[in-house]
Amino acid sequence: MEKVKIGLIGAGRIGKLHGENLAQSVPSADLYAVADPFMNDATKKWAKDLGVEYCCDDPDKILADQDVDAVFICSSTDTHAALIKAAAKAGKDIFCEKPIHHDLEEIHDALKAVEKAGVKLQIGFVRRFDHNHKAVHDTVSSGKIGAPCIVKVTSRDPDHQPMEYLKTSGGIFIDMTIHDFDMVRYLSCSEVTEVTAYGAVCDNPDYAEINDVDTAIVVMKFENGALGVIDNSRASHYGYDQRTEVQCQKGCVKVENDLENTSTVLCGEGVEAAKPTWFFLERYNDAFITEAREFVDAVLNHTETPVQGVDGLKPVEIALAAEKSMKEGRPVKLSEIC
Amino acid sequence: MEKVKIGLIGAGRIGKLHGENLAQSVPSADLYAVADPFMNDATKKWAKDLGVEYCCDDPDKILADQDVDAVFICSSTDTHAALIKAAAKAGKDIFCEKPIHHDLEEIHDALKAVEKAGVKLQIGFVRRFDHNHKAVHDTVSSGKIGAPCIVKVTSRDPDHQPMEYLKTSGGIFIDMTIHDFDMVRYLSCSEVTEVTAYGAVCDNPDYAEINDVDTAIVVMKFENGALGVIDNSRASHYGYDQRTEVQCQKGCVKVENDLENTSTVLCGEGVEAAKPTWFFLERYNDAFITEAREFVDAVLNHTETPVQGVDGLKPVEIALAAEKSMKEGRPVKLSEIC
Amino acid sequence: MEKVKIGLIGAGRIGKLHGENLAQSVPSADLYAVADPFMNDATKKWAKDLGVEYCCDDPDKILADQDVDAVFICSSTDTHAALIKAAAKAGKDIFCEKPIHHDLEEIHDALKAVEKAGVKLQIGFVRRFDHNHKAVHDTVSSGKIGAPCIVKVTSRDPDHQPMEYLKTSGGIFIDMTIHDFDMVRYLSCSEVTEVTAYGAVCDNPDYAEINDVDTAIVVMKFENGALGVIDNSRASHYGYDQRTEVQCQKGCVKVENDLENTSTVLCGEGVEAAKPTWFFLERYNDAFITEAREFVDAVLNHTETPVQGVDGLKPVEIALAAEKSMKEGRPVKLSEIC
Amino acid sequence: MEKVKIGLIGAGRIGKLHGENLAQSVPSADLYAVADPFMNDATKKWAKDLGVEYCCDDPDKILADQDVDAVFICSSTDTHAALIKAAAKAGKDIFCEKPIHHDLEEIHDALKAVEKAGVKLQIGFVRRFDHNHKAVHDTVSSGKIGAPCIVKVTSRDPDHQPMEYLKTSGGIFIDMTIHDFDMVRYLSCSEVTEVTAYGAVCDNPDYAEINDVDTAIVVMKFENGALGVIDNSRASHYGYDQRTEVQCQKGCVKVENDLENTSTVLCGEGVEAAKPTWFFLERYNDAFITEAREFVDAVLNHTETPVQGVDGLKPVEIALAAEKSMKEGRPVKLSEIC
Repeated sequence: MEKVKIGLIGAGRIGKLHGENLAQSVPSADLYAVADPFMNDATKKWAKDLGVEYCCDDPDKILADQDVDAVFICSSTDTHAALIKAAAKAGKDIFCEKPIHHDLEEIHDALKAVEKAGVKLQIGFVRRFDHNHKAVHDTVSSGKIGAPCIVKVTSRDPDHQPMEYLKTSGGIFIDMTIHDFDMVRYLSCSEVTEVTAYGAVCDNPDYAEINDVDTAIVVMKFENGALGVIDNSRASHYGYDQRTEVQCQKGCVKVENDLENTSTVLCGEGVEAAKPTWFFLERYNDAFITEAREFVDAVLNHTETPVQGVDGLKPVEIALAAEKSMKEGRPVKLSEIC
Repeated sequence: MEKVKIGLIGAGRIGKLHGENLAQSVPSADLYAVADPFMNDATKKWAKDLGVEYCCDDPDKILADQDVDAVFICSSTDTHAALIKAAAKAGKDIFCEKPIHHDLEEIHDALKAVEKAGVKLQIGFVRRFDHNHKAVHDTVSSGKIGAPCIVKVTSRDPDHQPMEYLKTSGGIFIDMTIHDFDMVRYLSCSEVTEVTAYGAVCDNPDYAEINDVDTAIVVMKFENGALGVIDNSRASHYGYDQRTEVQCQKGCVKVENDLENTSTVLCGEGVEAAKPTWFFLERYNDAFITEAREFVDAVLNHTETPVQGVDGLKPVEIALAAEKSMKEGRPVKLSEIC
Repeated sequence: MEKVKIGLIGAGRIGKLHGENLAQSVPSADLYAVADPFMNDATKKWAKDLGVEYCCDDPDKILADQDVDAVFICSSTDTHAALIKAAAKAGKDIFCEKPIHHDLEEIHDALKAVEKAGVKLQIGFVRRFDHNHKAVHDTVSSGKIGAPCIVKVTSRDPDHQPMEYLKTSGGIFIDMTIHDFDMVRYLSCSEVTEVTAYGAVCDNPDYAEINDVDTAIVVMKFENGALGVIDNSRASHYGYDQRTEVQCQKGCVKVENDLENTSTVLCGEGVEAAKPTWFFLERYNDAFITEAREFVDAVLNHTETPVQGVDGLKPVEIALAAEKSMKEGRPVKLSEIC
Repeated sequence: MEKVKIGLIGAGRIGKLHGENLAQSVPSADLYAVADPFMNDATKKWAKDLGVEYCCDDPDKILADQDVDAVFICSSTDTHAALIKAAAKAGKDIFCEKPIHHDLEEIHDALKAVEKAGVKLQIGFVRRFDHNHKAVHDTVSSGKIGAPCIVKVTSRDPDHQPMEYLKTSGGIFIDMTIHDFDMVRYLSCSEVTEVTAYGAVCDNPDYAEINDVDTAIVVMKFENGALGVIDNSRASHYGYDQRTEVQCQKGCVKVENDLENTSTVLCGEGVEAAKPTWFFLERYNDAFITEAREFVDAVLNHTETPVQGVDGLKPVEIALAAEKSMKEGRPVKLSEIC
């Protein structure tokens, strides 16, 4: 079987996840090289266990390697746009973790470079590959229950991230809700035209000190006339709450959380059911494999990637609009942002 | 057993429902008289079958009757405020269907009359007596999962009302969402301070001609810091969709719809489950009985009614704010309305 | 509206339940007289509150009354057969609580009297009128998922009955499983031909002293080739566990318990759902009303009653076979019993 | 990290499944050699893709290899016992697919060889590693809801196996129910003492020609006083139906099927939910990985394997008793078999 030779750029938590999936669960992928600015013995050992000998600390070396077909950009967010431009120039197909950048100008530059080079770009919006959300999307896009009217996303993390992380995260909308902004585009089969964002500090007063919120509701209008709403919490305390729903003209499609198991214990004291899976590693484990497979297949078969450059741009625009709406206490049209 | 002698004012659909419940399912109630401006033989026959001989077309006759302890006001909305005032003056305890009036001035006058007379007033927000929503409220108000952060209400009618009805209904917020505005107050244990309302005509273009919408999302801020959201559809097409949920600081409580039955049919073609119950008569049948019982018990035991005058006022204020928000395309504070 | 004049015989717990349903929830019924050998002031007061003045301690008086169209026999089990015979002779249509008798000869005599008199007889197997079990039956009998292969009934009472009651109950099969024997006939659309019954004392050692069991599993063969199984517990401790399921040739239909409400509370400690409804009064409340309505309608419209004499006979035969099987430790064919 | 060097014996469907899991998902395993009597280029290519160069057609070669620590016996059932004996003699730790053999004598011989050699033996009863069934077992064995009273297993394959396969399968009990016999031992925390088995040909008349059945119910007694029941179908037509439940003294624990996704589509025509996962590869995918990991860990850490030799023996005994019961139409005690 022909395989796609892949260079992994960035071997942190998410990079290691992609590396393992590529080596073990994507038959058409040949994980060939790993670059990380903090390359060390532990990472070399990790790579070797996956059958990768070629380790370095400079991504440029990988980009310059003629044997490399494609790269997975899993480095820190601020390096994504520059690496996309460099990889495009080097003629490599690109998988890049979200978000491309916090700055729209930088994103536009990166997308232009990709277009000019004619390489593939897939953005790591992993939820599109989840069995549940995909079932919602497929039902909506089939048209069998009519056009969408109400798009709902519930998205709550299990627990607070460290305050050190939150301080530089860019705020709830660009850091966390960005996945949900991708979801509403995916589920509505349309584009957001206006948002009103409400935020609140309900659980942990420390958020107020860094001008962020731990709770948010964003309501939206879409080009196709539908309305949408996202509700977010930084800390559900019971697990990763990831539910989506679309009310269409003729009916509704909705999905519940995946649970740790399907057990129920009934006794005199009450009825106990299993919890939702804890966080994204548990919930989206299979989806991470699927997104890598679909990228590698697109490269191999010269077809379109399932999540493209524009899909990396739009959620950032919506996130910036949501931030502006919350700050200014008014609805913000997307046309004010783009 | 001592019984409360009740006069029913208005014997339309909802009046007949209350009448039957009082006669058959509220042991402490004595349905004693029925007044309806369109009193006819069919209604007299209906009353007689319930054991009521005293029928008339003038509510004043009932209000003047010294034997009557309390009245159920189930006449058309525009008569509610005036009948409350008259009943209060006559010293009768009052159960009144929602809404009291569309005009805040009229509501205030009615509530003042009630206060002055020292009679009881209960407003017919029946959902507070539903086994599901009550379970949400009880969990939140117990405090065992902390203070509320996100309050969510999904409320969708099964199918469009006749256009004749809709034309004079006052619009979606005062006619339909008003029940949900009561719900968010009940579930949040707090008061709404600001709303942003989005409306759309998604299913039936006729709504546009009467300046109304068939789809709406209302997002809210509460005094206690929580956020809330209601999503509405005039026509789900699959039944009465009535779900509520509150994310609190330590966890979440939520309820699903009641279904026609609990059956699942699994075969090669797919898996078929039962539908939600069709509309409010099926879903809130028991709740109507409970609200009548609790009113009668409050009268008998000289205790407070479970839904009071202020609970009739606040949802109207929120509805007017929502209407203003949708019309003007901006958040509206409740302080602008009251 | 024409009404059926009904005499209630036996005003204990189940008699009062039927009396209230007839008076309040069955519009075509006229509850006209109540006979109870222990007639007292409390029962007279109860009857009067339902609008019944005619109370006596002798059922014969009611049977002799020309105005009485039909009787509800709710007296103690040992009187059922004799009362059926007397009522048939008097030309009254008959609703009789289960079981008709523990002795097959007595049942046959009663059924012959009914047949000879040409009156109607309906046996109180209330579960046939439950929304859930009916959905299973209707799917099976529609034939849309093929012929039945496996019929399953889970039936567990919430808690032990008093030992005084159990001593004279006739044992688990005739006292409790009899309802499930009716269910398997109803759900399989066929007749039982053989049973093997296993019993055990698992929860309360007192059962051993009265030669009874608190836990049982009965496996069955049906005329149509299907197999069946019932599992019973006298004390689930979490509520009334009443689930049915039929695997057919092309698929499966199954129902879950009704719950107190649909709530789920999710928090760090776990996930808590609502309990099943507690016992038969909660679970089969609506079914009791429906069975009374269908009896009264059958009388009024001269149609067949939904549960007939043979349906009172067969479950007793199966119960006797199950008892024999458990005692003798071998499969017992129904042909050994009848 | 120290790794366990593993030789895979038998590279058919289940052998390839284990091979891939060992190579890709069990970090402590080193899949080192593959032996298959029908070794060919395709299998060599498959092995090479997993990083295994050492392929041969003779298992003895692997057993003689000093570098091999343990073997996975995945060859045809009739070779299991002989290979266990040979592997034990060679001092290899052994993972063997179920069943060990259809003949009890052969099983005893194999187990003696294992005991004599002091090597480890784990039998491939994969369902013990399923997240759902394990939750049931863990609740029962914790004792928190008391001792078990009723043990229930529903186990239905999605569709008929080819008649060629069925002819030599040994019949439903030894071929299919054997997994369920392991389950009831696992869930009851006890041993079966008696069975009564009922079988029927309900769906496909071809089974009658090979003296087999497509539908079965087995009822059981356990040493600890509990009762149990298994219901089987060779062809559910809707997917892999794998539910377990234990009623204990203080309450009940039960699990439902895993579904393809959690979606529900509600519209005017009805409510459609997702199907159960199709068959064992989908349902027990993670369980296969877990059982391999636990075996490798036991070898590495010199601890006991989670499913041992006796666990390979007992289900065969129960299967033989069930077969005898069905054939002879009577309860069969396990003491008649052993």
